[in-house]
Amino acid sequence: MALISEIGKRLLKAREELEDNKLDALLITNPKNLLYFTGKDTGRALIMRNDAVLWVKELYRDLYSEIYSNAGYEFDLRIYEEGTIKNLINKSKIKRVGVENMGISEFNRLAGEVKKELVHCKIPETLRAIKSGYEIELIKRSANMAKMGMKKAYETVKEGIKELDAVSKIEYEIRICGSETPPFGEGMLLASGASGADVHAHAGTKRICLGSLVVVDLGARYQGYYSDMTRTLAVGKLGKKEGELLEFVENLELETIDRVEVGTKASELHRFVEKSMEKKGYKFYHSTGHGVGLNVHEIPNIGPKSEDVLKGGMVFTIEPGIYIPGKFGIRFEDMVLLQKNRIELLTR
Amino acid sequence: MALISEIGKRLLKAREELEDNKLDALLITNPKNLLYFTGKDTGRALIMRNDAVLWVKELYRDLYSEIYSNAGYEFDLRIYEEGTIKNLINKSKIKRVGVENMGISEFNRLAGEVKKELVHCKIPETLRAIKSGYEIELIKRSANMAKMGMKKAYETVKEGIKELDAVSKIEYEIRICGSETPPFGEGMLLASGASGADVHAHAGTKRICLGSLVVVDLGARYQGYYSDMTRTLAVGKLGKKEGELLEFVENLELETIDRVEVGTKASELHRFVEKSMEKKGYKFYHSTGHGVGLNVHEIPNIGPKSEDVLKGGMVFTIEPGIYIPGKFGIRFEDMVLLQKNRIELLTR
Repeated sequence: MALISEIGKRLLKAREELEDNKLDALLITNPKNLLYFTGKDTGRALIMRNDAVLWVKELYRDLYSEIYSNAGYEFDLRIYEEGTIKNLINKSKIKRVGVENMGISEFNRLAGEVKKELVHCKIPETLRAIKSGYEIELIKRSANMAKMGMKKAYETVKEGIKELDAVSKIEYEIRICGSETPPFGEGMLLASGASGADVHAHAGTKRICLGSLVVVDLGARYQGYYSDMTRTLAVGKLGKKEGELLEFVENLELETIDRVEVGTKASELHRFVEKSMEKKGYKFYHSTGHGVGLNVHEIPNIGPKSEDVLKGGMVFTIEPGIYIPGKFGIRFEDMVLLQKNRIELLTR
Repeated sequence: MALISEIGKRLLKAREELEDNKLDALLITNPKNLLYFTGKDTGRALIMRNDAVLWVKELYRDLYSEIYSNAGYEFDLRIYEEGTIKNLINKSKIKRVGVENMGISEFNRLAGEVKKELVHCKIPETLRAIKSGYEIELIKRSANMAKMGMKKAYETVKEGIKELDAVSKIEYEIRICGSETPPFGEGMLLASGASGADVHAHAGTKRICLGSLVVVDLGARYQGYYSDMTRTLAVGKLGKKEGELLEFVENLELETIDRVEVGTKASELHRFVEKSMEKKGYKFYHSTGHGVGLNVHEIPNIGPKSEDVLKGGMVFTIEPGIYIPGKFGIRFEDMVLLQKNRIELLTR
C-alpha cells in the first residue's frame, strides 16, 4: 500500500523536526493533519521520537482496519478513552509537547490536564507544504477535474441563464467526474456583472447579461487533495475598458508565474502584483495566492506580510484580481507546481 | 429592511449579556458571528455598552453600502487599518473585553497588542441558539430545500447506480431549488451497504446493490441558515435483521422527539437514546443531535457531556444511528423547532 510507505516518510520528517525544535512529542488533533500522518482524519495521534500512538473510537478501529492493521503501519493503535492521552504524556519522560493551532478553550483544557510544557508549533503544516511525488499525482487528478468543470462553465455561462442554475450544472459536472466534494467549503463562486466585484460573492438568482464579465472560481477534491482555479468569462462583446482590463489581469497572472522560482520570497511576488496594478491605477484587495493540498488554503501564503519562501515541491495558486464596486470584477487563477528547475501549470 | 431591525435586537441582547458578564466590550472576528451582528460576514466588530464599531476593507464598504449606510444601522463604519482596533481599545475606558474561541496564535497576538483583560466568552453562540421569528422563517425555507433534495434521493437511489452519480443528481436538485451552498462543508453524505457503517462516509464509485440500506444525509442553506436531515433508504427487499433495525431506529428517533420540551436536559435526552440502544444490544457512537442555524453544528449540543438545557426558540436535530462495521448503518435525523408549548418538525 503506497500510502503506508508515504506515512513512514512523513513520520521520519516529523521526527527530524521534533529534534530541530527540541520537542519530545507532537500531538495531532486537526483532522487534516491526522489524515496526513495517520491516513484517516479521525482520532488523536501522538508522534514521539521513537514511537507513535493513535487513539480512535472503537467503531473506526474496525472500519479502517485495512490501514490500521497493515504490517508496516507505525502507529500503535489504541481505543480512545477519557484521560488516556494525558495519562500517557504525564507518566512518560516527555518534557516538551508540540501542539497545533487549536482554539483557546481547547488549549486551556489541555494545559490543565497535561503537566508538561505545551509549545505551539507549525510542524505538520510546514511539512505538508512540500508535496511528494505521490501527492503531486493526486493533486494533478484533482486539477484535471477542476479543468473539466471549467470546460463546462464555458459551455454553460451564456446570456439569460441564472447564476445559480449555471452553478448547479457546473458543480454537477465536477461531481460526476469523481470529485469527492463539491468545490471548496461553500460551493464554487460564480459572479456576473457587478457581483463580480465581491471577491467572495456566491451565485444568486440573477440572470447573466450580454456584455458582462463572469468570475468563475472552482475546484475539486481527489483522495483528500484540493484543486483551485479561476477564469473570468466574457459574455458577448465587452466594453473597451472591460476588454482591456481582462487582458491586463490575465497577462499579469502569467507574468507573475514567470517570476516564480525556488528561493523567491512570497511577499516580493505579491509586491510585484500590487505595484503592477498601482501603475495601472488599481488597488489590489487580496493576497496573490496560497498553497493547495489537503486544505484549499495552506502554506505558502503569498501575501504582503508573508515570511514564506518558495521551495521545490510546493503547489500554490497565483490569482491577481481587480474589483470595481458597482461595475465588475476580474480574476485569473492557476495552480503552480514548483520543482527544482522548472514550474508546471496544473490548471492550464 | 427587516434585517436592520433584527440587528438592533441582537445588539440589545448582546449588551444585556455584557452587563451580566461584567464585560465592557465584545470583539467579533468569527465570520458567522459577524454575519449575525453586522449583516455581513466580513471585518472586525467591537460591541460596547453604548456604541458599536465595524471595521471593514474599503472594498466592502462600497459593496455592502445598502446595509452599512442604512439609517438604522447601529455600527459606526470605519476602514480597517493596521492597529486601529487595538488603539481604540487601549485608549478607551474599556477594562474587560469578551473574545470568541479563536486560535491560540491569534489570541496570543491579540493579547500582546491589547493592554486590557481578555475574557473568552460564548455570548454570540449563546444568543444565536435562540432563533427569532425572522430566523425561523429562513430556516424553514432552508429545510424545504432539504426536503426537495430528499425527495430526489428517493427517486434516484436505485439498484445499480453509482453512489457518486446519485449524489451528483441530488446535490444538483438542492442547488437548482435555490440553496446557496451544496449540502454542508464537504457535500452530502450517501453511503450504501457496508459504507453506511462509517458515520462520515462520503459517496464513492461503488454501485448500489439490491437489498442494501443507503444512508442519505443532506441539507441546504438559505440566507445563511442551514438545514440538515437524514433518511436511511431500503433498496429492494431487506433481510429480517436490517428491516427490524430500520424500524427500530426510526421509531426511536420519533420517541426521542416526543421527549423534547422546554427545560429538558440535553444530556438526559442523549442518555435515553443510549439506553434504548443498549437494551437492544447496540452501542451509540455519536451525539443525539445539535443546534442548526448559521452553522450546521451549533448550540445546543445534545450529547453525553452537554450542560445545555433545551429552550423555546431552539432549532436542533435528533439523529440516532446504529452502525455495524462490515455490514451496514442506519440513521434517521430531523430538525426540531422547540417553542414554548409545542414542537414542530421542520423536515417531515
